[in-house]
Amino acid sequence: MPSQRQYRHEMVFFGNLLHQRNYVAAMDGNLSVRLDGDRILATPTSMSKGMLRPSDMVIVDLEGHLLSGRHDVSSEIAMHLLIYRLRPDIRGIVHAHPPTATGFAAAGMALSQPLVCEVVMGLGSIPLAEYGTPGTQELTQALEPLVPQYDAILMSNHGVVTYADTLHHAYMKMETVEHFAQISLVTHLLGQQQPLGQEQVEKLIVARSRYQGSHSAAPLPASCGSSGNHRGTRHPVAASGGNDGASSLRRAGSRLERTGSMPVKN
Amino acid sequence: MPSQRQYRHEMVFFGNLLHQRNYVAAMDGNLSVRLDGDRILATPTSMSKGMLRPSDMVIVDLEGHLLSGRHDVSSEIAMHLLIYRLRPDIRGIVHAHPPTATGFAAAGMALSQPLVCEVVMGLGSIPLAEYGTPGTQELTQALEPLVPQYDAILMSNHGVVTYADTLHHAYMKMETVEHFAQISLVTHLLGQQQPLGQEQVEKLIVARSRYQGSHSAAPLPASCGSSGNHRGTRHPVAASGGNDGASSLRRAGSRLERTGSMPVKN
Amino acid sequence: MPSQRQYRHEMVFFGNLLHQRNYVAAMDGNLSVRLDGDRILATPTSMSKGMLRPSDMVIVDLEGHLLSGRHDVSSEIAMHLLIYRLRPDIRGIVHAHPPTATGFAAAGMALSQPLVCEVVMGLGSIPLAEYGTPGTQELTQALEPLVPQYDAILMSNHGVVTYADTLHHAYMKMETVEHFAQISLVTHLLGQQQPLGQEQVEKLIVARSRYQGSHSAAPLPASCGSSGNHRGTRHPVAASGGNDGASSLRRAGSRLERTGSMPVKN
Amino acid sequence: MPSQRQYRHEMVFFGNLLHQRNYVAAMDGNLSVRLDGDRILATPTSMSKGMLRPSDMVIVDLEGHLLSGRHDVSSEIAMHLLIYRLRPDIRGIVHAHPPTATGFAAAGMALSQPLVCEVVMGLGSIPLAEYGTPGTQELTQALEPLVPQYDAILMSNHGVVTYADTLHHAYMKMETVEHFAQISLVTHLLGQQQPLGQEQVEKLIVARSRYQGSHSAAPLPASCGSSGNHRGTRHPVAASGGNDGASSLRRAGSRLERTGSMPVKN
Repeated sequence: MPSQRQYRHEMVFFGNLLHQRNYVAAMDGNLSVRLDGDRILATPTSMSKGMLRPSDMVIVDLEGHLLSGRHDVSSEIAMHLLIYRLRPDIRGIVHAHPPTATGFAAAGMALSQPLVCEVVMGLGSIPLAEYGTPGTQELTQALEPLVPQYDAILMSNHGVVTYADTLHHAYMKMETVEHFAQISLVTHLLGQQQPLGQEQVEKLIVARSRYQGSHSAAPLPASCGSSGNHRGTRHPVAASGGNDGASSLRRAGSRLERTGSMPVKN
Repeated sequence: MPSQRQYRHEMVFFGNLLHQRNYVAAMDGNLSVRLDGDRILATPTSMSKGMLRPSDMVIVDLEGHLLSGRHDVSSEIAMHLLIYRLRPDIRGIVHAHPPTATGFAAAGMALSQPLVCEVVMGLGSIPLAEYGTPGTQELTQALEPLVPQYDAILMSNHGVVTYADTLHHAYMKMETVEHFAQISLVTHLLGQQQPLGQEQVEKLIVARSRYQGSHSAAPLPASCGSSGNHRGTRHPVAASGGNDGASSLRRAGSRLERTGSMPVKN
Repeated sequence: MPSQRQYRHEMVFFGNLLHQRNYVAAMDGNLSVRLDGDRILATPTSMSKGMLRPSDMVIVDLEGHLLSGRHDVSSEIAMHLLIYRLRPDIRGIVHAHPPTATGFAAAGMALSQPLVCEVVMGLGSIPLAEYGTPGTQELTQALEPLVPQYDAILMSNHGVVTYADTLHHAYMKMETVEHFAQISLVTHLLGQQQPLGQEQVEKLIVARSRYQGSHSAAPLPASCGSSGNHRGTRHPVAASGGNDGASSLRRAGSRLERTGSMPVKN
Repeated sequence: MPSQRQYRHEMVFFGNLLHQRNYVAAMDGNLSVRLDGDRILATPTSMSKGMLRPSDMVIVDLEGHLLSGRHDVSSEIAMHLLIYRLRPDIRGIVHAHPPTATGFAAAGMALSQPLVCEVVMGLGSIPLAEYGTPGTQELTQALEPLVPQYDAILMSNHGVVTYADTLHHAYMKMETVEHFAQISLVTHLLGQQQPLGQEQVEKLIVARSRYQGSHSAAPLPASCGSSGNHRGTRHPVAASGGNDGASSLRRAGSRLERTGSMPVKN
């Protein structure tokens, strides 16, 4: 297991990537790592994630009280603590505002269409949590029903949170969310989508089970069901609406079953 | 307070970021810092902001006369001087043309919909100033009514200006403007927007007041009112128009009240 | 011919470019090089292509069995082996998910319109392979009819694969595919396309033949036929559909003839 | 005047920027510098502009014959030679395929709407040349009528060429073209444009004349006329067409008058 010093350097590294890739603007976003049963290492409030130094991090207890660090704790720490509490397997969390995925979240649309096979295998569907004022119980209450089943969540009018067995894997899930949002947006712009059908999605779940051996104990989100027929049934997207398919899949996304845990092999 | 040498290096650093992030093209944009009661340090005219050296900066007095420097003063200095005159709390200004926000400014649309909670807390709404020919009184007259209440302004057919208690914070507000423009554009492309309702916006203003302790004395812009109902009232965006919602919020944006000053904690 | 050590460094270099340019997210994508008649050097599974070291690569035989390396073989190796088997001239393969091209692949649209002359000369049309579950025979069966004639293929709901006489050239073809997808998307967004006519396409094929002397023995894909008249016949693109032209060209794209092999001179 | 060695390093530097900024893919694009009355220094054929070394350049005479260099001459040299012949004031040329501007060129649309004041002052309108097969007289004939009046030209189904008194300034004009194309595209996506009116454009021409003192002897392109009324007359853009305004301005763009030469001061 990495030392605390290594964790601090990892947070600087992934904070820089978040900023370089335009996943955060200004002082947005935060990262955290579970150090042990009692302590969380987190980025401080009011600093650009692209300009952090290892010594800028704060350490808090599981109630969010500052244990050490010369900066203040972010008001978003409650979101991190909720996830660590509900998911003992999680050791790293990334919260950011990647613009395409956040655009879906501001449009009221989940990322739940099975458009790309590796996203279905890696994250399943990405649900949209109800809006809650940041730093209040509203937000944690909106996330609470989703955290056990998903590893990546869109938050309405806010942004995205991803989490995994390591900070590295949590960051990688953030890349997947924004990348998939970009691909989905292109299909909307082209006015046409060809999602995978139920049969193909089921084969991907079988394929997923074949690749056991993850170091992560995190339950992966289940696949998104799609009742549509594949091939021969293209889904035209009305330019003025564009979300019928998404809504139906968002609903479908609630018919989730837990499946085995495993990493996607590329 | 940083030395003049540090300010020159900061201007090189943030000039490079402006160029890397595609917020300026060619010789576009300029940065300035208030050195003291009589002098402004500014980037010179006709140089790429991505290729500046610390020695390239010019120093002008409050009428824009060159006090020192081996390059010419930008014709856009009048915009900077106006802001320093109207806002004693401001010590750093960034002017750039980030393409998405400038696209809104060329479409005649303000960025005033409450689509992302952190933008509501950080900048409120971002108004659109009337067009004025650069380097003339038309432009400063168009900005004058907006400068006291806002920290970020779109300028019609021109670009964006942001300002704060430090150059660092002014730059960060520029990131927020373009990032928010990108998110807003995605909602237009998806043909659907789910803005925050009046009640949620008011909670954000309360949350904002909780986070007192800013080092900046700058009055923050007030929230953008939204008379729409949240949840259950989606706002479809006609692909061929797309600005009905925006126009009504632009009007709503003029019903601003000043609120307390504080930084957003992330 | 480069040494194996040079190949490993090339794979690190182009893996980094894939990640920097947003052509892969998370652990997506893979690269390979044919070392000799019996061995393939390939990127391992479950690692970001932006964070590889030369020692991370694996060596497999032509059935995909691990010969050396401390990581596991990617389940996508079968796609690489198929291409090396069908195309003796190929020595480098790149598989990635560049978001615009992958958006076309998730919309069910090939990149087969003759919109940019250098793409017609360099790649001809870029076909869309049927969907097949990754790591199964479905996928290789879907690719098999296309591999002999094309050097770049969109894979439905999956991504893109490109291949050439060197890894360097295979990577460059990936750049061309995504770049061309971006240009094509812009024409869709502008609601209007002005593809080259049959006569212009034929002149490009003649121009292509003039530039003999390629070091590659790879047969280049043939031009995409376009039955439309150039000039005076603009193709309006319906915002809600947008694929009529593409579909007809996809069909036209199957009327391919093999033409001479040569590189495009820029 | 820089030494030939400096020019070679400049070409490497700007070639890298072209590639980093996604203005070229694969082996696309080329750069050249007029060394003296008889010789042109140019990038060679079939190399990525992001991977050039100073020693890779070729020197050709004014008929395009190779004078020195160990690589081949690009077939696009004829375009460069035409510009050097028609414009004695030009010493640097950049040809690239920035994807948004090239999308306009593949849609058959010029960039001639007065949407951003600094583009009107810097480049005026950016015309669209007819298509001509690269490396043939068709292409140079299509460019010939436009080269004397413009410093930046879209080439149908091909890309963009910009030129200036130095390679540095030519590169900067390429940035302006793509940046302006991005801004213009955003207005199309928002379904609404608010171009400057005739009166504002005329004021910009006056402002331009005030800033005499350019080191360049190049005549700048004249402003684009706009017969539309500013303010109060928004131009809705039909999502399915989107080019009515552009076409009328393209026609208006041919009513050009030559104006004084000067750089834009930012």
